[in-house]
Amino acid sequence: KPNFDPRDHQHLRYNPLRDSWVLVSAHRMKRPWKGQVEKPSEDSVPRHDPNNPLCPASTRANGEVNPEYDSTFLFENDFPALQPDAPDPGSDHHPLFRTKAARGVCKVMCFHPWSDVTLPLMQPEEICKVIDKWAELIEELGPTYPWVQIFENKGAMMGCSNPHPHCQVWASSFLPNEPALAERCQRAYLQKHGEPMLLEYARMEAQAQERVVVENEHWLVVVPYWATWPFQTLLLPRRHILRLPDLTSQERNSLASIMKRLLTKYDNLFEVSFPYSMGWHGAPTGHYLKEDMNHWQLHAHYYPPLLRSATVRKFMVGYEMLAQEQRDLTPEQGSHT
Amino acid sequence: KPNFDPRDHQHLRYNPLRDSWVLVSAHRMKRPWKGQVEKPSEDSVPRHDPNNPLCPASTRANGEVNPEYDSTFLFENDFPALQPDAPDPGSDHHPLFRTKAARGVCKVMCFHPWSDVTLPLMQPEEICKVIDKWAELIEELGPTYPWVQIFENKGAMMGCSNPHPHCQVWASSFLPNEPALAERCQRAYLQKHGEPMLLEYARMEAQAQERVVVENEHWLVVVPYWATWPFQTLLLPRRHILRLPDLTSQERNSLASIMKRLLTKYDNLFEVSFPYSMGWHGAPTGHYLKEDMNHWQLHAHYYPPLLRSATVRKFMVGYEMLAQEQRDLTPEQGSHT
Ligand SMILES: O=P(O)(O)O[C@H]1O[C@H](CO)[C@@H](O)[C@H](O)[C@H]1O
Ligand SMILES: O=P(O)(O)O[C@H]1O[C@H](CO)[C@@H](O)[C@H](O)[C@H]1O
Repeated sequence: KPNFDPRDHQHLRYNPLRDSWVLVSAHRMKRPWKGQVEKPSEDSVPRHDPNNPLCPASTRANGEVNPEYDSTFLFENDFPALQPDAPDPGSDHHPLFRTKAARGVCKVMCFHPWSDVTLPLMQPEEICKVIDKWAELIEELGPTYPWVQIFENKGAMMGCSNPHPHCQVWASSFLPNEPALAERCQRAYLQKHGEPMLLEYARMEAQAQERVVVENEHWLVVVPYWATWPFQTLLLPRRHILRLPDLTSQERNSLASIMKRLLTKYDNLFEVSFPYSMGWHGAPTGHYLKEDMNHWQLHAHYYPPLLRSATVRKFMVGYEMLAQEQRDLTPEQGSHT
Repeated sequence: KPNFDPRDHQHLRYNPLRDSWVLVSAHRMKRPWKGQVEKPSEDSVPRHDPNNPLCPASTRANGEVNPEYDSTFLFENDFPALQPDAPDPGSDHHPLFRTKAARGVCKVMCFHPWSDVTLPLMQPEEICKVIDKWAELIEELGPTYPWVQIFENKGAMMGCSNPHPHCQVWASSFLPNEPALAERCQRAYLQKHGEPMLLEYARMEAQAQERVVVENEHWLVVVPYWATWPFQTLLLPRRHILRLPDLTSQERNSLASIMKRLLTKYDNLFEVSFPYSMGWHGAPTGHYLKEDMNHWQLHAHYYPPLLRSATVRKFMVGYEMLAQEQRDLTPEQGSHT
């Protein structure tokens, strides 16, 4: 029998942040692709489009006119999935028909006045302004809401409905499924192993250098050992940090720099403005602000859909939806491409 | 304050099969869609294409020639994600770098010799042959593998790489994440409430008639109370049944009939060959065959991606990947469209 080689032999890897497994079948990259090919993304977004509601001086759906902003620009989502005043659905009548109240706010933040300037094309000082705003938003919404989800959908392939570079912020009166899972897993890890999970993980990855994509004095980006998307990455601080507002100004500068390097690498991989969904996970807020949350470590997830080229994506469909996520190259291969 | 109305007021609903929540924000359907529009699916698949490796008499990637089959046709996947003889990765060395062995087989089953005949276009007797094969596969692979996942990816949008109507069967030496969750939830429900979860659920839905899409003497199809995809459905037997081979021939006929009705409804909804991923969940097999699995109830999930039309899909992206699944219409609205 041959020796085990992760590039040739399927195996399972454990995701300690989600308490679940991923099937790694790297030999599958050899199969020819005859399925759907994506439209190459239009690389000619006009710098300014007066009909685009995210541009400076444009009129939005609700009739409001945007200011002539020259840096970041924050406003309330005109079609929010969460509103602050939804009435209570009332109490559960049956264990199979359970309902709970959901309240919150949804905001949109433009990164830059120009529609053709994505994060990797921005100056580090401009990216710093985005980071400062993110931190401010956590400080502002955190006391009211236990979870403030900052996320960016980039590219039409990731359901982004407006090409102007922007992110969203959805704050909720409940702890959503994914952070609830990360909360439970990180809490159990500290209890059992005496160290915050992702602090130990960053240290071990920095040492191993097998899955590191970029790193600097304060930050480390790896394709995690348990990555599900082909080129998924995890952005981690080297120091123990609970939430975005805790970052020093030096750490923010250094974050702007590593984001620019990571996103430029992504754009260069298939020579296309790389689509992804990304988001920040820090310690929950609201009433958790008063609790010991030292099991948490701030981190960002990048989930890009592409697999083989600018137009061939990985589909997470049948087997993945019904049984288990499956990947077609090893995370080590993903980090060295 | 207005009274709670699920169509106007966001709320959370509990999924008892996955022990998680979905955010229902039905008022979001009002937002205009300016994002990605899908290619309408080519409705002119040739009945026979000698270069299509799934057609009768075609040569496949491995050089084998398909028989001139005239009903279903089963063969080994030429690019399997699971192989029966992968070497063992060895034991875990660290809780953050855990690996497990994975073994299995992957098969493909063509439904019909003609490439342009999808399930809803087949005769009930022809669909019955598919159902019989599904049951045979569970009987054949079940004793060796604890999980046999039967699934169909339909349509290019769902990563289906060959238009010839077919499904796949991936049997594995491990219980994957999703069935492991369904196993845990159904076991706990029976223990706590004294009745199999999905048996009780089918009875209550049949009575309420609020989310029923189609039904007959033996089967019920509902948009589940906790559906995440806009037009997701759950296909349930009315009688307590653990696995596909347990179906009587009358129940198989009746299943063929209800599948045809459901899939025809789907095709008519947006007047397109409706894309979806679907799959069967029955009680686990392998060593579980000798255990009391009465908490299980056989069921099939249909996960279709479309939201507003044949070309506008629901994207499960940023917020959904990082925080929690969110839907833009109520399950009740989904079942009455
Ligand atoms: O096996 P296929 O049809 O080529 O591939 C399709 O289904 C698989 C199982 O859901 C997925 O892993 C692939 O991403 C998808 O493209
Ligand atoms: O809010 P947007 O950008 O219009 O919408 C996009 O992101 C949302 C949050 O991830 C998703 O619910 C939508 O399906 C997606 O199209």
